Amino acid sequence: MLDAIQSPADLKHVPAEKLPEIARELRERIIAVTSENGGHVAPNLGVVELSVALHRVFDVPKDKIVFDVSHQCYAHKILTGRGARFGTLRQTDGISGFCNRKESEADAFGSGHAGTALSAALGIAAARDRLGGDEHVVAVVGDAAVTNGSTLEALNNIAAHTHRLIVILNDNEWSIDRNVGAVADCLNRIITTSFYNDATRGLKRLVSKIPWCGEHLIHAGSAWKQEKKQVLTSGASSLFEKFKLRYVGPIDGHNISQLIDFLEFAKKSRQPILLHVRTTKGKGLPVAEAHPDRFHGCAPYNPETGTPTKIVHGAPAPWQDAFGKTLVRFARDDEKIVGITAAMSAGTGLCFLKKEFPERYFDVGIAEGHAVIFAAGLAARGLKPCVAIYSSFIQRAVDMVMHDVCLQNLDVLFCLDRAGLSPQDGATHHGIFDIAMLRCLPNLTVMQPKDEDELADMMHTAFVRGGPHVIRYPRGSAPGVKEKEYPALLEIGKAEVLAEGDGEVCIWSLGSMLPVAETLCKQLAADTGTRATLVNARFVKPLDEDLLAGQAKRAKLFVTLEDHALAGGFGSAVLEALAAKKLCVPVERFGWDDRFVPHGTSVGDLRSRFGLDTESVIKKVRERLAGL
Amino acid sequence: MLDAIQSPADLKHVPAEKLPEIARELRERIIAVTSENGGHVAPNLGVVELSVALHRVFDVPKDKIVFDVSHQCYAHKILTGRGARFGTLRQTDGISGFCNRKESEADAFGSGHAGTALSAALGIAAARDRLGGDEHVVAVVGDAAVTNGSTLEALNNIAAHTHRLIVILNDNEWSIDRNVGAVADCLNRIITTSFYNDATRGLKRLVSKIPWCGEHLIHAGSAWKQEKKQVLTSGASSLFEKFKLRYVGPIDGHNISQLIDFLEFAKKSRQPILLHVRTTKGKGLPVAEAHPDRFHGCAPYNPETGTPTKIVHGAPAPWQDAFGKTLVRFARDDEKIVGITAAMSAGTGLCFLKKEFPERYFDVGIAEGHAVIFAAGLAARGLKPCVAIYSSFIQRAVDMVMHDVCLQNLDVLFCLDRAGLSPQDGATHHGIFDIAMLRCLPNLTVMQPKDEDELADMMHTAFVRGGPHVIRYPRGSAPGVKEKEYPALLEIGKAEVLAEGDGEVCIWSLGSMLPVAETLCKQLAADTGTRATLVNARFVKPLDEDLLAGQAKRAKLFVTLEDHALAGGFGSAVLEALAAKKLCVPVERFGWDDRFVPHGTSVGDLRSRFGLDTESVIKKVRERLAGL
Repeated sequence: MLDAIQSPADLKHVPAEKLPEIARELRERIIAVTSENGGHVAPNLGVVELSVALHRVFDVPKDKIVFDVSHQCYAHKILTGRGARFGTLRQTDGISGFCNRKESEADAFGSGHAGTALSAALGIAAARDRLGGDEHVVAVVGDAAVTNGSTLEALNNIAAHTHRLIVILNDNEWSIDRNVGAVADCLNRIITTSFYNDATRGLKRLVSKIPWCGEHLIHAGSAWKQEKKQVLTSGASSLFEKFKLRYVGPIDGHNISQLIDFLEFAKKSRQPILLHVRTTKGKGLPVAEAHPDRFHGCAPYNPETGTPTKIVHGAPAPWQDAFGKTLVRFARDDEKIVGITAAMSAGTGLCFLKKEFPERYFDVGIAEGHAVIFAAGLAARGLKPCVAIYSSFIQRAVDMVMHDVCLQNLDVLFCLDRAGLSPQDGATHHGIFDIAMLRCLPNLTVMQPKDEDELADMMHTAFVRGGPHVIRYPRGSAPGVKEKEYPALLEIGKAEVLAEGDGEVCIWSLGSMLPVAETLCKQLAADTGTRATLVNARFVKPLDEDLLAGQAKRAKLFVTLEDHALAGGFGSAVLEALAAKKLCVPVERFGWDDRFVPHGTSVGDLRSRFGLDTESVIKKVRERLAGL
Repeated sequence: MLDAIQSPADLKHVPAEKLPEIARELRERIIAVTSENGGHVAPNLGVVELSVALHRVFDVPKDKIVFDVSHQCYAHKILTGRGARFGTLRQTDGISGFCNRKESEADAFGSGHAGTALSAALGIAAARDRLGGDEHVVAVVGDAAVTNGSTLEALNNIAAHTHRLIVILNDNEWSIDRNVGAVADCLNRIITTSFYNDATRGLKRLVSKIPWCGEHLIHAGSAWKQEKKQVLTSGASSLFEKFKLRYVGPIDGHNISQLIDFLEFAKKSRQPILLHVRTTKGKGLPVAEAHPDRFHGCAPYNPETGTPTKIVHGAPAPWQDAFGKTLVRFARDDEKIVGITAAMSAGTGLCFLKKEFPERYFDVGIAEGHAVIFAAGLAARGLKPCVAIYSSFIQRAVDMVMHDVCLQNLDVLFCLDRAGLSPQDGATHHGIFDIAMLRCLPNLTVMQPKDEDELADMMHTAFVRGGPHVIRYPRGSAPGVKEKEYPALLEIGKAEVLAEGDGEVCIWSLGSMLPVAETLCKQLAADTGTRATLVNARFVKPLDEDLLAGQAKRAKLFVTLEDHALAGGFGSAVLEALAAKKLCVPVERFGWDDRFVPHGTSVGDLRSRFGLDTESVIKKVRERLAGL
């Protein structure tokens, strides 16, 4: 049946009783493709019925549905004309794992970071009001997003800026980890205080408890009435009422007919309305229901067993594990070390600290800004906090890094994972702007290690020295270098010369670009016998200006290599240092050009496409040398 | 009496009945100094009694008081040993207008931006718990800060991370403008639903309505009981209870004995507690009470009449007025243009739009992240939003500029006021990092005009062209250039050559640095007859690489001038462009060095001190030329 649905209009012709069958087929398709390609399995399986109901009730693209994070858009994509291409999900030139305005007009607003949907939907609704449109605007927001400042800021503004906005609170009790904080507790209280077994209360009394709309619903004569046990007011109701949203719920998010009735009701609301929909993350795939955290976003897997299918055997552990285990090692010796994550214990590797020192592990929810200020507060009182956060998400806390940490010169260590590409996620997740945004900040030391052992040295150096430090490292396997027994205290702002050449060509590599730099070095030797000097920069800031200046006296070409945007990055810092030293030497910089890098099957794919693979680098350096 | 108080310990020896006298003297001192130096008059006058009560009850520096924004710290500073120096407030080498850990150990945490106090205080409290300390931690937060995402994120985490934290909600109904949003309404409802005239309710019944603590208070036998009319539960109570804060209030913020009793009560709480304190902004200075917005932060004034006393007659209007009026002019012709501010209508100049087109003006509260995403939503639905925000505050929304606006290439114009120094405010308010943080973003055009007329051209160009644009301009008077009748459409990425020289020295000036560049140009001519080429860059991104490359063929020195950090700024972009074009020419860059610039009496003062005044620039260029 699913193949016959090329657009939401087709869905509207399906007999109502067949809709669960559509949901079943959607689920099968999502499992089939994600088990091959990987992806956000559990979030998508949780909203299959909700997606069917949304497209049954609303007219997309006229009506606008804004998905928060939009990692739950797979059923939406299949139902809006992208079913045939769905097998290309998250692959090079395939469809994106997130909503994307360029991909389809059914995607009203793109995203990838959490907490933006309410603000964006409110903007769309306010513009509609101003332009005299009559379409519906729906924001689909996970409960985890309600821990995020942007969502909360938007909540505070909804009533002031529109009378017509539908908010679907998709409550599955999880962010990537289990949800934290007072709002999450507030939502959970619905369950614990529900009147499930209270036979003395009749349907009418229960329904009339729904604030604002209860009276109307009693007369609506719709099927959901049968589900009386779940129609309850709760702690959540009065919370959202404070924000002047009409609250209805909780609603069974896997009952299509109930969802449809409630969505139809919401369409008629002349006041912003919130439907509290309860869903099960991973619904319909037993392994995902059992482990919604592991199946939040995952690599290709066996749908029966849940085990990963495309593991490279013998590959070293990922960077986040190296970081996480090293942090625990240092934490054992220094009680002042604590760790902070914004809802990503496994992704950042802080899960190791959580396991060994749960009382020194802080998960603050998807709240990067608070995470950084909170860390500054911890440091002001004498602890040594390590904030582990992805490169693309530290963008949300740049002000706090400046205002709360650097300006006060506090002992906070930032460990930025995913610095470089997150290939299958794409532009929202690539971490290629952190150096530019952060190296302008006084008092901040910015480093990138070439391997796990150097990562340990850098962490050790930061903890011993104090003050604000950033260490960045990429997604994926680290090189597999075993850590020394005792970490070394690095000299601040000193690079490591890996190979002394004849001095004409000096290659400065930052962190994970070292294999490219090494191959380049060898190739230049093979080509022309040029013995290039190879430098592992270690420090973006302070840069080793003395070494640079010394080399500049003889060098005829500097080459810089970084997994970061060229604008304002490491190579840019090298140019600044040379200019400050009044030195003029040609510099060939390699990094990401001034464009957003899309998603792709692998880092290798995207590097080849955008000129950052080893072959392209070698070719360009050869040409440059030939032209000198 | 005040002169005898050199520390909080001295305050504790003052007889209780004399405390109002202390408050009166504090108020006189604050008015005396701010009327001479300018400053945050109204916020400070509002918290005089609160500050006295805080230092009577708590033991600073052992106990930690964290002030949000900390623009209400004047009485605190006078009471903690800085009375003698208070006359140097906000002057070069004088005391800061904000809390600053370097200035005094009484300042537990520094700030300047809104919304950080709860997070910081929570961090301090969590560290205290971990380290086994017993001090009290108090966050003093304005009601406006509750519109801010960081505050809301922190609220969600308080109960999970400590059992002992005292939050003072200083509710005066204002941010800089009158407060907006659902939370503000929630607080206001206290007043409108209060039982002021309800004689049938007795004291006991009223007091017992205070959640959690009411019962205890009844037995406390303290003076505040007399103030029964204000001891009420309210909409605010259940809002904060959702966040698991014990709520007590509202409390009369100008009654010292009542404040002391409540603070003593709060000290005993073994659960995070919020005291809702109502204050009058500008209390005790009639002109400030009447105009709390004008007296939020203001220049020197006559305390009787409120009129500014140090106006430079004949000085042109400030940049924000030029921007604000021009925006209205364009808005008259294009109904799609709308304006967004984060609680700063006058400071940004959006007050002009608010006045003429109130329905096209959006004040979202102190919520910069939401402001940007909301603008992206408006643009996605076809409007042309202009987000007016200070340079130092856009740091809070860098991720949203990237993720929501640039990635989707939406038609949003960012007008960044205070790009450059805010001398008397200091490091938290200087806008010298925006270029570095933003020019790395693809799709973004970054400009800075030399005068009002060029500002109008840039705004016109951005609106006509569409896509994401940033225009930055400094605090203070614009040059006074009258706008053309019809604005010009600028060619994107083209600089303006103001003087063609002989080509040996090329001076590239960005925006407001032009007077320095012009003087430099003249001086070089006078010195040695060098006819320098003078360029008004206009565009930081895209930079006029062709012009640069053409000049580089003959130039022996480029000079770049910007009111921005050198790291990653405009001059850095010039270096990148030259390197990309394979050109090696000496470049002498002028901008702010890699350090936080403190507060000072004037821009001129700070420029002289840090080598960015005209004389220093000329001297350095002369030396450089001599050394070539």
